Amino acid sequence: MTGTLYGIGVGPGDPELITLKALRVLAAVPVIAYPATQSGESLARRIAAPHVAPGRTEIAIPIDITQPHAGNQARYDAAAERIASELAAGRDVAALCEGDPLLYGSFVYLAERLGGRFPITVVPGVTSVTAAAAVAVQALATGSEPLLVLPANLSEEALVAHLKTAAAVVLIKLGRHFAKAKRALAAAGLLDGATLAARVGFADQRIVPVAEVAEGDPVPYFAVVLARRSPR
Amino acid sequence: MTGTLYGIGVGPGDPELITLKALRVLAAVPVIAYPATQSGESLARRIAAPHVAPGRTEIAIPIDITQPHAGNQARYDAAAERIASELAAGRDVAALCEGDPLLYGSFVYLAERLGGRFPITVVPGVTSVTAAAAVAVQALATGSEPLLVLPANLSEEALVAHLKTAAAVVLIKLGRHFAKAKRALAAAGLLDGATLAARVGFADQRIVPVAEVAEGDPVPYFAVVLARRSPR
Repeated sequence: MTGTLYGIGVGPGDPELITLKALRVLAAVPVIAYPATQSGESLARRIAAPHVAPGRTEIAIPIDITQPHAGNQARYDAAAERIASELAAGRDVAALCEGDPLLYGSFVYLAERLGGRFPITVVPGVTSVTAAAAVAVQALATGSEPLLVLPANLSEEALVAHLKTAAAVVLIKLGRHFAKAKRALAAAGLLDGATLAARVGFADQRIVPVAEVAEGDPVPYFAVVLARRSPR
Repeated sequence: MTGTLYGIGVGPGDPELITLKALRVLAAVPVIAYPATQSGESLARRIAAPHVAPGRTEIAIPIDITQPHAGNQARYDAAAERIASELAAGRDVAALCEGDPLLYGSFVYLAERLGGRFPITVVPGVTSVTAAAAVAVQALATGSEPLLVLPANLSEEALVAHLKTAAAVVLIKLGRHFAKAKRALAAAGLLDGATLAARVGFADQRIVPVAEVAEGDPVPYFAVVLARRSPR
């Protein structure tokens, strides 16, 4: 009997935005794994902290987030083998994921490596996209409007081209790409009414018009921008 | 002291996919409201059923889902006034919303009518989009891929135009629009690998390739299709 690999969405930051299903799995598994920085900091682990019982085996997966996926292949290979040894011994492993495991999450890199060999179950989570809309009390999209989720790490030209066709948009992966994203929003006629939501659910939460944020202001990687062509 | 209007995401169907925050609000409010059919059936109320304590005042909002929003204005007006009378009396009201309140949810129609007069707090929920990806164990998008959430109630021409530019797409609001959506996927070169996820979290859950679903097959309104130009 091998163990099951669980991908657990722990939500966008507020520990109360975790689901009952995620809690049930967390209470049952003997092993948890989570992405971490080179120095061991893990947002997913911090969000789940109130819900992790003592005595669990913990596997931190050190990721260099300044690198594209190609630069972290060896780290995922090593983590997958460590997790595989637990699963092969019949122990279930829960991989903690910020937001949702399958929406731009790194869980897919574990699933690719382990999916053929072990059963996988994914527990979806609340994403930073809907959490940002909630604190801004702003509709993401309504009726027949398409909604575009757009990573800001694309080129400025690509951002402008996508934004020009968009009715409603959520920009993600901001961080050092914020200034470029702000220029692209302006070029596409979407700056007016665009809202930056940063550190949602934390004490230093910030909900401000993008137009009021200077291009040089530090913006977290996990912040999002909400914009609509016809804001309600 | 007026009451607060809460928009509560109850998740996509499985009662376990509700958050601790939603549970806390549900346990505290004296009044709940929810969209319902003309005959009183309510998916949101059914999802929340295990978590609603007895003795709550309940306000069903009968909506004709065959009509666009314009055809339901009077019904929202009446519901907003009924809710306003509770809020004015100092009683908090929780509006239950399938999935998330602000992602194509009807909560925005209550918020528009009541937002100026009463405080509003939104509790985000797990959406049918991430829940479908979870059961299919299929990434919605990764890296710098834009993700397009596309309502199938657009015209076939509009669907094809949007799909042709999309790297990763989730089609929503399917129902009677399924056959049109399937043709549009084929025309845009996205049919291969596209997955239909219907009734996710219910006993009759169905995860099948779109290519294997006949155009005349009944598909629920809340089903989704996941498609990617380069499926992992």
